[in-house]
Amino acid sequence: MSNIKEIAKLAKKASYQLSSLPTELKNKALDAIADKLEVNSDKIFEANAKDLSEAKKFLASGEISQAVYARLKLDENKLRDMICGIRDVKKLPDPVNKKLWAMKLDEGLDLYKVSCPIGVIGVIFEARPDVIAQISALAVKSANAVILKGGKEAVNTNTIIFELIVSALNSIKEFPKNSINQVFSREDVAQMLELSDYIDLIIPRGGNALVRYIKENTKIAVLGHADGICHIYVDRMADWEKATPVIVDAKTQYPSACNAVETVLIHKDIAKEYLPVLISALRKSNVKVRGCERACAICADIVPANGNWACEHSDLVLAIKIVNDLIEAVGHINTYGSGHTDCIITEDKAACDVFMDLVDSAGVYNNVSTRFADGFRYGFGAEVGISTNKTHARGPVGLEGLTIYKYKLYGNGQVVDDYVSGEKSFIHQPIEI
Amino acid sequence: MSNIKEIAKLAKKASYQLSSLPTELKNKALDAIADKLEVNSDKIFEANAKDLSEAKKFLASGEISQAVYARLKLDENKLRDMICGIRDVKKLPDPVNKKLWAMKLDEGLDLYKVSCPIGVIGVIFEARPDVIAQISALAVKSANAVILKGGKEAVNTNTIIFELIVSALNSIKEFPKNSINQVFSREDVAQMLELSDYIDLIIPRGGNALVRYIKENTKIAVLGHADGICHIYVDRMADWEKATPVIVDAKTQYPSACNAVETVLIHKDIAKEYLPVLISALRKSNVKVRGCERACAICADIVPANGNWACEHSDLVLAIKIVNDLIEAVGHINTYGSGHTDCIITEDKAACDVFMDLVDSAGVYNNVSTRFADGFRYGFGAEVGISTNKTHARGPVGLEGLTIYKYKLYGNGQVVDDYVSGEKSFIHQPIEI
Repeated sequence: MSNIKEIAKLAKKASYQLSSLPTELKNKALDAIADKLEVNSDKIFEANAKDLSEAKKFLASGEISQAVYARLKLDENKLRDMICGIRDVKKLPDPVNKKLWAMKLDEGLDLYKVSCPIGVIGVIFEARPDVIAQISALAVKSANAVILKGGKEAVNTNTIIFELIVSALNSIKEFPKNSINQVFSREDVAQMLELSDYIDLIIPRGGNALVRYIKENTKIAVLGHADGICHIYVDRMADWEKATPVIVDAKTQYPSACNAVETVLIHKDIAKEYLPVLISALRKSNVKVRGCERACAICADIVPANGNWACEHSDLVLAIKIVNDLIEAVGHINTYGSGHTDCIITEDKAACDVFMDLVDSAGVYNNVSTRFADGFRYGFGAEVGISTNKTHARGPVGLEGLTIYKYKLYGNGQVVDDYVSGEKSFIHQPIEI
Repeated sequence: MSNIKEIAKLAKKASYQLSSLPTELKNKALDAIADKLEVNSDKIFEANAKDLSEAKKFLASGEISQAVYARLKLDENKLRDMICGIRDVKKLPDPVNKKLWAMKLDEGLDLYKVSCPIGVIGVIFEARPDVIAQISALAVKSANAVILKGGKEAVNTNTIIFELIVSALNSIKEFPKNSINQVFSREDVAQMLELSDYIDLIIPRGGNALVRYIKENTKIAVLGHADGICHIYVDRMADWEKATPVIVDAKTQYPSACNAVETVLIHKDIAKEYLPVLISALRKSNVKVRGCERACAICADIVPANGNWACEHSDLVLAIKIVNDLIEAVGHINTYGSGHTDCIITEDKAACDVFMDLVDSAGVYNNVSTRFADGFRYGFGAEVGISTNKTHARGPVGLEGLTIYKYKLYGNGQVVDDYVSGEKSFIHQPIEI
């Protein structure tokens, strides 16, 4: 096993070279990766079969779940989607070297704020072997070096995909070596989390436990989310014809997704009438309901929630609470939510505005399913993950979240002393970009 | 002493209310603060006199330096500047609730990316009592709640300024209580650093030791910089008429500033001729020079640097190294620099482009003093600090760095299932903002 610090150092060096690559070269690299994976699909399926036969041994004991097994399996369709995804990233605009803002500080003294890559990104993901290709493509396009650590269940599949990617990149002479790197063990991850001198950002893609472990064990900035506790508040002025299908979709369309709804809040004025309507719709979709005392008093067959409002069910289970007003709903969401995505169902524009301003979440929605919280649905073309951070990037994160900026200042010998002494003064004229 | 967790909880609650305040109300609050401080200047000077007389006792023993004593002293000019600064912040555009981007996902399904405050910001600063007013003004304008911890030397001055600010804010009924908070001891700071559930960002304003202590002891995002090791590279194609005054300004105009130059790199082809010219100019400004072996060989009276290239001298001391080419210069800067601000002196556009792309710093300059790295000089109107982070905000940070964004999605009952089943499809049309 190579030394992780050595890998990170070389990745850092590669990252400096990556930052000035022209768009055409990055696109050429993406084509080379897609072609290489396409031509070598047999090798990939072979490696995947090995992983699947290993995994099968642990299915019976329950060490590996059916869901993990399903995610591990790479069939023709998944491979085609994976390769297609790489070509899609190629089509996206280059996020690097974009002029974001510019200001003439004085005659002959021009300041530009220009987007640039972050540097070295550590990505730690679980069983899905398609992630390695997706993240590599995003890294190439955004000119970041990456260190990838996949799930041990997919080690054969990940390794062959990684090797094919590296071989594709190495076929392009001008592409910096050591841009895409792989590490393997938990000990490697523990070491990675220490390397704040070389790694600029960690992106964990996996379950809550993984994300929490990483957030608690590193000084490096972490982009992601642990919980996804999303709410829908059905306001006094809600259109029930919208509320019911939106809630059913948000709960049932993909119950284990982070943007699925976990708690519905209902305004007390409509609860008596609306709750039975909603419950009946939910029951048709096999959703189990947990309720507050007032909800249980209206529909006797609801199981009490017992104040358990901060729970990500990840299943066909929904908690329902009756609230006195909009402000109580907002307070509940800001207390028990995870800052992911929350929705108000209302026809009242003023209530909608208050909700959207006061709810402190990455996504605040009106009359629409929380399941829309997704980079592809938002039109980003690619998604790195969904962030509940309050700094850097928030919500679904596309290529832009893999960039930062630098200030480029062009002068002709200016010194600060002239401006401090008053001999010269700043003009601060915005430059059109 | 109040419980810090209680303070942070109340600040969090205030932060939710702050987020929807109209610009006029925030500006009214800033006026009220400025007026209150103006009217009560006597009380402020009285408190400051107490701090100064306490500090004087420690001057002799060296526990407090002359520089700290000077920063602690609040005279008529400093107070006027402080109050003027608050009125300047009032004039800045509101950084909150700006539409940053918008996309029509489908007919009747509109997505807006809108700027919003970060939440609760902890600011830890050293002796300067004008910081408390400056940060409070920035917090009010950006609608963030703050928890302030000032230096113990300034406790009387800080407390009276804090009380006047709170009393001004309390005079405005609609302004949320507990928006601006103060804590006092080192133990309070240690507690603050633990409160990642309530505090969203920490801004340390002070010496390297303070910043390092904070970065090493919190999971909360930290905005700032520890070191400021800035470089100027004098290229083969440099105009010496520009190089010399720029270097002298960058070293001498304010030697203890973080954006002062610490190391000058000189291309080997010009070293023999240019080094003596530079040394002579530096000596006129009383700058002591440390050099690499090759530099010492050219000018025998240079003190050897002994490979000590990662040193922030904060004094009239400059290290000089001769490099073989541009790439060695870039490598040196990326190895020993602090990612703050670095400059190339050259008339060669291609060399300038390579330098600016490859040097991984917040500011990359051509033919201009590194001392320009400053929010006011950049035209931001206010400065929160200078960040060497690779995520969120980089370089001089103005009001914008105290904001993040949220996604607001407006629909009329749309469900994801329709888009997954193929019944509907996204149109993804950018909306003009």
